[in-house]
Amino acid sequence: MDWSHHLAQRSHHLKSSIIREILKLSRKPNIISFAGGLPAPDLFPIEQLRGPAERVLVERGAKALQYSTTEGHFPLREWIASRLPGSDAQRIRIVSGSQQGLDLAAKVLCDPGDKVAVAAPTYMGALRAFDAYQVDYLTIACDEGGMIPASIEDAFRKKPKLLYVIPDFDNPTGVSLSLARRRQLLELAERYDVPIIEDNPYGELRFEGEALPSLLELSPERVIHTGTFSKIVAPGLRLAWITGPEKVVDVITRAKQATDLHTATFTQLLAVEALASGFLDEHLGKLRRHYRGQRDLMLGALEANVPPGVSWTRPHGGMFLWVTLPEDVNATRLLQRAVEQEVAFVPGEAFFAAGGGENFLRLSYSVATADEIHQGIARLAGVIGEDPGVSRPGVRAREATPGD
Amino acid sequence: MDWSHHLAQRSHHLKSSIIREILKLSRKPNIISFAGGLPAPDLFPIEQLRGPAERVLVERGAKALQYSTTEGHFPLREWIASRLPGSDAQRIRIVSGSQQGLDLAAKVLCDPGDKVAVAAPTYMGALRAFDAYQVDYLTIACDEGGMIPASIEDAFRKKPKLLYVIPDFDNPTGVSLSLARRRQLLELAERYDVPIIEDNPYGELRFEGEALPSLLELSPERVIHTGTFSKIVAPGLRLAWITGPEKVVDVITRAKQATDLHTATFTQLLAVEALASGFLDEHLGKLRRHYRGQRDLMLGALEANVPPGVSWTRPHGGMFLWVTLPEDVNATRLLQRAVEQEVAFVPGEAFFAAGGGENFLRLSYSVATADEIHQGIARLAGVIGEDPGVSRPGVRAREATPGD
Repeated sequence: MDWSHHLAQRSHHLKSSIIREILKLSRKPNIISFAGGLPAPDLFPIEQLRGPAERVLVERGAKALQYSTTEGHFPLREWIASRLPGSDAQRIRIVSGSQQGLDLAAKVLCDPGDKVAVAAPTYMGALRAFDAYQVDYLTIACDEGGMIPASIEDAFRKKPKLLYVIPDFDNPTGVSLSLARRRQLLELAERYDVPIIEDNPYGELRFEGEALPSLLELSPERVIHTGTFSKIVAPGLRLAWITGPEKVVDVITRAKQATDLHTATFTQLLAVEALASGFLDEHLGKLRRHYRGQRDLMLGALEANVPPGVSWTRPHGGMFLWVTLPEDVNATRLLQRAVEQEVAFVPGEAFFAAGGGENFLRLSYSVATADEIHQGIARLAGVIGEDPGVSRPGVRAREATPGD
Repeated sequence: MDWSHHLAQRSHHLKSSIIREILKLSRKPNIISFAGGLPAPDLFPIEQLRGPAERVLVERGAKALQYSTTEGHFPLREWIASRLPGSDAQRIRIVSGSQQGLDLAAKVLCDPGDKVAVAAPTYMGALRAFDAYQVDYLTIACDEGGMIPASIEDAFRKKPKLLYVIPDFDNPTGVSLSLARRRQLLELAERYDVPIIEDNPYGELRFEGEALPSLLELSPERVIHTGTFSKIVAPGLRLAWITGPEKVVDVITRAKQATDLHTATFTQLLAVEALASGFLDEHLGKLRRHYRGQRDLMLGALEANVPPGVSWTRPHGGMFLWVTLPEDVNATRLLQRAVEQEVAFVPGEAFFAAGGGENFLRLSYSVATADEIHQGIARLAGVIGEDPGVSRPGVRAREATPGD
């Protein structure tokens, strides 16, 4: 039977993640990978989950194992609301990872051919979620302060259906949108009547500088906001949340019901029981110290090893930094040789919705050991130094302006 | 901000489940509800999950709490394949409830305006999943042997994109498709080149008669098959599976990745660890005895109480039976009075994709106690007996032919 003519139009828009392909490529035994964005498993709060898992099963098993509401377990929504300015529990929905939040937001907002405004570069998982609804993209240039307002306005003049942004410690660039730019973005969104999806997986992982208000807090009527336990507790539970104005949350609830009825009751009750012990604040301190140390190791190794003509961002939180290579260097080509030298990264072009970005790459410092960071960056520097686009005399780097 | 003009076309197709509204209506303290399709919580294998939950966290926490593959945990897929003739682990995908299986199948197969062939009546959760992809419906008449072949062929002449069916212990009717009809359905599907989605949540809950081969087993090249742990272990884990031909499973995998990356790692590892003890076969024996007893109680109570002119199905498995009222009785109107008398059910019209079905209702015998079944059916019989459509002299029942 030939299935190809039975498939929906959208199935031709469904691509497999390039990161998955790279992860396959980098399954060599001795490879040092800076490619994945996995949280550090040594820091998973396993001990803090054991007792709660047992208690939830023994004391509340009949509830924890039963169907539950599409909206999500109310005490978990209350806990989230208590830490999320601009939200309230009534408008919070529990979703199965913030990827599902993005999927549901796209599902209720996007018709085929709608235009979605995104940074260049942006998180490729978001692009995959939007792709399934057959959208087109408008790309916005960025610098070290995030999306550039003039470029936002250019995009808004073309009437996007929504704008998607990671304001804190962006994936892939690691940069944050400054407060002034947050306000400018929201003023423009108001003027052009564009809804905003704010994706905030890393906000709690700030290890330097002052926290900035979320777009949700600054404009609760215009912003759909998603956050997750994946980076602060553990991704294997698939627990996240989405919130926004009542009208759109209601439609998202109906979409979620049609999509998977509800997120697992057991993991929701487990999270509430574990969080009730108050372990998270201390745990976040540990995570922030860890990721800050990892960032410092990687920045130091880059400084010590990488040839002139290469620059990189200096994130204040999160898991990623973004490297700008000389314009003639193609990072996808570079990856082939890097893997031969047993080091892996994600080529930047994967994060550009409208093409380009060949001379960027993303490095994650989340899971590598100190030794791996030293060795891996030295290997990477060697590969970069041997690239014909670098080794020519007189090559100058562009500024580290992600996505301009 | 006015969100209504920002919503996608499909959002107007997203309806809330009538069952949820009825469950709200029936939250009165003393109400006896036959409305929900919840598995009996007293039979959840809590003890069989406690040790495995602890072991998975202690021995494999770093894996169980980490991101994992979109395809699903391979040992769980192997376990499923070992019990599912016509499948193999390579083509099985783990999904978050079979509702997600239906959503993903619709997502990769259905464009707006495509026609989906369904029984009248059929499972309303499937209709909600398909609705989100803006499909139209072709309805197929049923009798006590399930979908009627002549009506299937009528529908197939109108070129549906797919046919959806629950061959074993249908929700809502409780009836099964006979082996002869399974073959006829597949011959027609072959002749008209129509893909089939086989939804099999209840197949393991057969408590009478011989098991029949699944459509997947009879036609592995044409059938997308979904099954679930919800009815045999517990729904609160949100663990289910979908399988089918390689080509369509590949596209479903990409769609799943864009939708929620993967199903929770922790619950997948928990299931494998628990199932390894071999508890399930004994547990299934217990479930089957329980549901058979519940069915017998309800059939007996109906026989003893319900006035002439009313008939019902006699399921050999699953959780539901389907009641045919005299043609002039409207079950939605009846529900109002039933709730006053503190008994609830689901009016049949909720299960008809193209309208009609006002004189049917669905009863679930899964969670009520023996006493509740006796009292609840007596109350329901009283309400039916007082309905003006019944109490007129000379009223005759139609045969219990669901959906003709």
